[in-house]
Amino acid sequence: MKKPVILVTNDDGITAKGILALIEAASEFGTLVIVAPDKPQSGMGHAITVNHPLRIEKLENFGKHKAYSCTGTPVDCVKLGIYEILKAKPDLLISGINHGNNTSTNVLYSGTMSAAVEGAIEGIPSIGFSLDDHDFDADFEGSKLVVKKVIDYVLKNSMEINICYNVNIPNCKAKELKGIKIVRAAKAAWQDRFDKRKDQFGRDYYWLTGKFENLDDGTDTDLHCLSKKYASLVPIQFDMTAYHILKELKNIKL
Amino acid sequence: MKKPVILVTNDDGITAKGILALIEAASEFGTLVIVAPDKPQSGMGHAITVNHPLRIEKLENFGKHKAYSCTGTPVDCVKLGIYEILKAKPDLLISGINHGNNTSTNVLYSGTMSAAVEGAIEGIPSIGFSLDDHDFDADFEGSKLVVKKVIDYVLKNSMEINICYNVNIPNCKAKELKGIKIVRAAKAAWQDRFDKRKDQFGRDYYWLTGKFENLDDGTDTDLHCLSKKYASLVPIQFDMTAYHILKELKNIKL
Repeated sequence: MKKPVILVTNDDGITAKGILALIEAASEFGTLVIVAPDKPQSGMGHAITVNHPLRIEKLENFGKHKAYSCTGTPVDCVKLGIYEILKAKPDLLISGINHGNNTSTNVLYSGTMSAAVEGAIEGIPSIGFSLDDHDFDADFEGSKLVVKKVIDYVLKNSMEINICYNVNIPNCKAKELKGIKIVRAAKAAWQDRFDKRKDQFGRDYYWLTGKFENLDDGTDTDLHCLSKKYASLVPIQFDMTAYHILKELKNIKL
Repeated sequence: MKKPVILVTNDDGITAKGILALIEAASEFGTLVIVAPDKPQSGMGHAITVNHPLRIEKLENFGKHKAYSCTGTPVDCVKLGIYEILKAKPDLLISGINHGNNTSTNVLYSGTMSAAVEGAIEGIPSIGFSLDDHDFDADFEGSKLVVKKVIDYVLKNSMEINICYNVNIPNCKAKELKGIKIVRAAKAAWQDRFDKRKDQFGRDYYWLTGKFENLDDGTDTDLHCLSKKYASLVPIQFDMTAYHILKELKNIKL
């Protein structure tokens, strides 16, 4: 039987510890082709590069795996991976492992998850993985176990078309990890603040900062899972139409 | 009665004809505060700037309106507008008028619509406007009529919290415009291609290109509206959980 082709990307860039952990965990499941940004692209959301040309560089230090760095965003990497490198759709797309969780509304800001959503738009079974630890040198041992379980499940079972999975892993030792729960995204949002500073010429500049606040009492959410040392899996779809209010709005005369 | 405060942004940049048309159409409805990118930010999606500091510049050539350009993305403009410039939530947020339609899955790629979604996350009534014409010198006369109708409606009626409206306007003369319909997003996606070229050193580079394809037969969609010279209004929500498959997935053992 032909081994599945697995396209691998992330948003922390090709040198991040998280993508190396993902490659290590996934390599037993198929032929990996890695196409990842050449620099950190956190917070890039579903950005695509339309005003600049893109470049790809083939990398030699990924052992048996074909690997490429790309000057663009995570979503650019997915598009280039499919249409210029593989010239075909892979059997699976995996993105991550992100340094930092991508729970709740973070799906919108996250390059890691936007790459998975782009895979879903293309009809490819796609999974984004994120660890709840921003540290460059985070411990990915527990994450690797979760990656293996989820990939194994997805390759053995069908996955609904135009859906991707958002997997978040708690910040704990592998042996403390309690399991994986299938849940919904919590209602949560950033309480944004800016850190205003002055440069050497006395001019103002601003750093985006803030605190992510859980506004949800539910126990069936990704954020609740992480707090209890469970990994969370949220199925994600990309039609943002607010169907629940569409019917009542239809009576409006404009 | 106090005039409503209206935060105005876009993704084509502060000098685009589209935002000038939006300002002109909206100015009778309240006190406008404009915070828009200092350069084109098309395709930036829900990107936020986390790895660079941001700068704001106050602009003098916007008549009675307070106006600022910002070095960041449309979503950065919304966050800076609320937390550093207004230091309060506006009564309404409007984004656009985009040069080019933002129907269907384009909501994900669009900086214009991501600014409106960010407003919705903040609980602000928010509307994104897009004209189905990419031309820098597009004719916004019909669009201005649509902008006035929608703003007037939203200010006179309540808008559900955490929802924004995605308004697309057909590319036709104002007098040919048939009306505004409230519909769902069409199922449609980009058929991506890359234009591969060689630079002066013989190295490859790529331009993202492609064709947007309507995969939807429905007559109750944004794309169908535009084809019949109706403007479309789609209510948008930002929880991407795929609730329709969550129940069946919950029986999976992982």
